Amino acid sequence: MTGIVSQSDKHTSGEDSLIARYFKPLATDPGAFGLDDDAAALRAAGEDIVVTTDAIVEGVHFLPDDPPDTLARKALRVNLSDIAAKGAVPAGFVLTLAVRKADESWLKPFARALGEDAADFGCPLLGGDTVSTPGPLMISITAFGRLPQGKMVHRAGAQAGDRMFVTGTIGDAALGLDVLQGGPVAAALADDASGRDFLAARYRVPQPRNALAHAVRAHASAAMDVSDGLAGDLAKLCAASGVTAVINVPSVPLSSAAAGLVARKAIGIETLVAGGDDYELLCAVPGDRADAFLREARQAKVTVTAIGGLIAGSSPPSFLDGQGRELKLQQLSYSHF
Amino acid sequence: MTGIVSQSDKHTSGEDSLIARYFKPLATDPGAFGLDDDAAALRAAGEDIVVTTDAIVEGVHFLPDDPPDTLARKALRVNLSDIAAKGAVPAGFVLTLAVRKADESWLKPFARALGEDAADFGCPLLGGDTVSTPGPLMISITAFGRLPQGKMVHRAGAQAGDRMFVTGTIGDAALGLDVLQGGPVAAALADDASGRDFLAARYRVPQPRNALAHAVRAHASAAMDVSDGLAGDLAKLCAASGVTAVINVPSVPLSSAAAGLVARKAIGIETLVAGGDDYELLCAVPGDRADAFLREARQAKVTVTAIGGLIAGSSPPSFLDGQGRELKLQQLSYSHF
Repeated sequence: MTGIVSQSDKHTSGEDSLIARYFKPLATDPGAFGLDDDAAALRAAGEDIVVTTDAIVEGVHFLPDDPPDTLARKALRVNLSDIAAKGAVPAGFVLTLAVRKADESWLKPFARALGEDAADFGCPLLGGDTVSTPGPLMISITAFGRLPQGKMVHRAGAQAGDRMFVTGTIGDAALGLDVLQGGPVAAALADDASGRDFLAARYRVPQPRNALAHAVRAHASAAMDVSDGLAGDLAKLCAASGVTAVINVPSVPLSSAAAGLVARKAIGIETLVAGGDDYELLCAVPGDRADAFLREARQAKVTVTAIGGLIAGSSPPSFLDGQGRELKLQQLSYSHF
Repeated sequence: MTGIVSQSDKHTSGEDSLIARYFKPLATDPGAFGLDDDAAALRAAGEDIVVTTDAIVEGVHFLPDDPPDTLARKALRVNLSDIAAKGAVPAGFVLTLAVRKADESWLKPFARALGEDAADFGCPLLGGDTVSTPGPLMISITAFGRLPQGKMVHRAGAQAGDRMFVTGTIGDAALGLDVLQGGPVAAALADDASGRDFLAARYRVPQPRNALAHAVRAHASAAMDVSDGLAGDLAKLCAASGVTAVINVPSVPLSSAAAGLVARKAIGIETLVAGGDDYELLCAVPGDRADAFLREARQAKVTVTAIGGLIAGSSPPSFLDGQGRELKLQQLSYSHF
């Protein structure tokens, strides 16, 4: 800790030039002005700008030994996932990085991976602030998306009769975290390195479903991304919309790694439905839009699965097993296995 | 530290409701959706959205015993200052708050002061993220402004022949920091409690010059806010514009507290010209625009002072004393007294 210093003294000039060297190449948007100005300018020709912000802290949201490249991707992708859920197209992001020191061996792979994702998702770096901290590493990203005026898809808006869809597969990330922490899932997969790697990667590098954004905007009555577990986030969407849901748990899409663990009774399906960090999209779609939604999802090459439907009521969502029996809600709250 | 947890588990539900209670009232813009959605929507009818971001860390950018209300104001105002410097009108902000725990006695005055400033400056809270950290408190704000398409005022753009103006008074905040740290300025003002209070307040609560934004946009060829010291920031503006400056140091506007310390030789004027945290605006204005700029500044009730002019050249800016002698540049770099 160097005491209270003015902004220019936060880093040595060598550190400043290191930071500039690695991040300037990411500022590909003309409105970023090469990171040489005090602000960026985001052009918005009659569109709304969707704004979302997510921060991750070392030791709280990620593991101290998580590789810098996967951290970069996750920090950006959790924001991209929100933009997709709202039906918007990525427009750019600003980065706040709090680091103990400017360490080239960390910054280089971090910036490279961030730049690759920024390019792949069409979401350039617009600006940021790098500050010193004596504490844990923290990465905060505020990301922007564009959509036609008034067209943001909300958590509220779903109606009784709508069908519930989810993208990808559910619960892998929670299993991946357990694998990385050497927990019971790691033990159950002791002989399955590729299964462990798959699940760890699902935790470390989510796959935001930005390709589905147009279908969400065109057809969904409500949507959000699943970051805190399918069960919890579905409850939030239902509460915001003033409806409740009936979910057919055997319909919840599972990866073969997760399905294998369930089949072997190494884990219960409740663990998957409650586990966090999926970053899949949860979409309520009116019945007469479902076919068009599915068709557009196929064209976008995003797997979506119907998992149940919405009904009138204000009770918590119901989760039914293969025999139509309701699973107890307390089993669905997040647990560390 | 509670281990790696999903987002919903970052705080207890009691903490979450505490945070919601204090921050929801600040989300007055319809595009904030009451902080109940995953993103905000910023309407932009053909305007550009100016984006700026600044983070402050406890023990690095502010003192651990700084009051929560002044911290809130400073965190927002340093961003408002950038928006003013670019000629834009505040549109809103998002807040990332990293705290050890949700402490009501801290959150309440923090949120109240933030809400007051948000209302006073027309810059409502649009969204945010509150995360736990085992480390120092960190406040990161990304703020937005609006201006007509392509009209952002840059650091680059100043021309030889332009006059340099600065708002308010220079150097008070650096003296205020010394007062708060019990340094030589505090000793020199041992018998002057009101002088000490004035300077400390200038450090803790900057006065962003948003009222001048229209004049900046209408008349300045280049502008930036002075956060790292007048000397250093002027050098940046000159370098970006490809010109150099000649500053008449006795013209640099000083508060009576600062002027008194200079008159008593308790400090040198170099300390003021080099000291950080002013958050005043530095504007280059073409000669034929200077009268109109001054007139509009008067109407906006913002004091602006001509401090010199720009000339061709790439050498560092010159600072001349009352006898026209050049002050040595090394005296102008930031020092802790």
